[in-house]
Amino acid sequence: MLESIAEVITIGNEVVSGRTVNTNASLVARRLTSMGFLVRRITAVRDDVEEISASIREALTRGISLLITTGGLGPTYDDVTAEALAKALGLPLELNQEALKQLVEKYKRSGVELTEARKKMALMPRGAVPVENNTGVAPGIYVTYSQTEILATPGVPSEVESVLEVFLTKYLKGKPSKKYMEVSFKVRGVMESAAAPHVAALVKKYFPIYIKTHPRNREMNLPVLEVQIASSDEDQNRLAEKVEQCERDLKELFRSLGGQVEE
Amino acid sequence: MLESIAEVITIGNEVVSGRTVNTNASLVARRLTSMGFLVRRITAVRDDVEEISASIREALTRGISLLITTGGLGPTYDDVTAEALAKALGLPLELNQEALKQLVEKYKRSGVELTEARKKMALMPRGAVPVENNTGVAPGIYVTYSQTEILATPGVPSEVESVLEVFLTKYLKGKPSKKYMEVSFKVRGVMESAAAPHVAALVKKYFPIYIKTHPRNREMNLPVLEVQIASSDEDQNRLAEKVEQCERDLKELFRSLGGQVEE
Repeated sequence: MLESIAEVITIGNEVVSGRTVNTNASLVARRLTSMGFLVRRITAVRDDVEEISASIREALTRGISLLITTGGLGPTYDDVTAEALAKALGLPLELNQEALKQLVEKYKRSGVELTEARKKMALMPRGAVPVENNTGVAPGIYVTYSQTEILATPGVPSEVESVLEVFLTKYLKGKPSKKYMEVSFKVRGVMESAAAPHVAALVKKYFPIYIKTHPRNREMNLPVLEVQIASSDEDQNRLAEKVEQCERDLKELFRSLGGQVEE
Repeated sequence: MLESIAEVITIGNEVVSGRTVNTNASLVARRLTSMGFLVRRITAVRDDVEEISASIREALTRGISLLITTGGLGPTYDDVTAEALAKALGLPLELNQEALKQLVEKYKRSGVELTEARKKMALMPRGAVPVENNTGVAPGIYVTYSQTEILATPGVPSEVESVLEVFLTKYLKGKPSKKYMEVSFKVRGVMESAAAPHVAALVKKYFPIYIKTHPRNREMNLPVLEVQIASSDEDQNRLAEKVEQCERDLKELFRSLGGQVEE
């Protein structure tokens, strides 16, 4: 098996029919690339158990260290990723007690009843670990098969991002051997939407460095952003140099937009 | 083989690494869906002969009537789709005389020399038919393998669209058995960029109806747009009804934007 090879599978009729552009796959691929993974293939399939499990099996056959799927986790009839994943791995699908606990707490807090349809989100292949979803309801599914780590995330873009970050930080074992560096800083007084087009230009300029703004405050009149910069390289010095240059550029940008940058 | 099943393969490191969002695949899938094809899978692979030819062979194995690939046709060293396609089909790659003729004419008109690197764009699997590229240089490649029709287009979005339209109109044999309807009308006095956000809302509302504006005049002060509407349905009456309603809505939109609609 080649080291640090990843694949992404996006699940959803709306993507395969062309209705929705596949930004989820780009988001995941960009993040994995910044960590030092070589993303070798992206596949989009329909909400169909056979199609999904076939595409998962094929990816596993190609010998990869990481597989991320997005979409098809949720309460509706066409959310079939958990079932397809169990099928692809030859594992029984069962109620995951830890996932159920997360759902019970979540629904209790919001005063919503945990119906059978909602309990479906705790069904996972045997041995899977639920990955906390801090933005939505359905937890991600983390399972290891032979030498491949697999993460299934829901399909809402903010949940893809949130579940993926928890997974990368807390669960992923097979990290690429390249050096990895991540820095972040806070900015007050610049709205994310105002910064967006300028940040997009730097994202393009500095690719494959990963740049991401996270709003940390909901108040329109006192916005706080956390700016995250991540990259990888064989060479520690070169890595530090490029990340630091990117950080300087970003800080300068936020100052020019009237922000107070926390040093 | 199932009838009218299609797949799309997008070729390019920039897509698989997450640098570029895969709008080409969405464009192609949306257009095929509007014609009555069921798009079953979209695959994105790197600029690598082995990866591309493997993904083509896999798609053919799944039994499909149409395969569209985008990207990897051009003069540079990493444009390897023609080679990979020949390899996947077990055909020799050779200089296509008709394609060469198209290139010679194109370069003659623009007074640019036809170098060896540029001649590479006439290399095609034996028996292939070059598909005219009215927007760029590299012709598309049309080849039939067993019961599957295959079209390879370049990767520049405007060229994907242009080569695909020529192919669908002039070459495609295996049209879906659903009724297909296409209408178009002309509008004077509305810039495409001014109409774009409003048209996008109708594209969303009327999906899977295909709506597309084509600028037919380069003059900023007298813009002419051709508006194309296409869809398919089992039922002729229902099809006519929805296409006509979409057409009425679009005409009303262009009038409200100050355009003169040609009846």
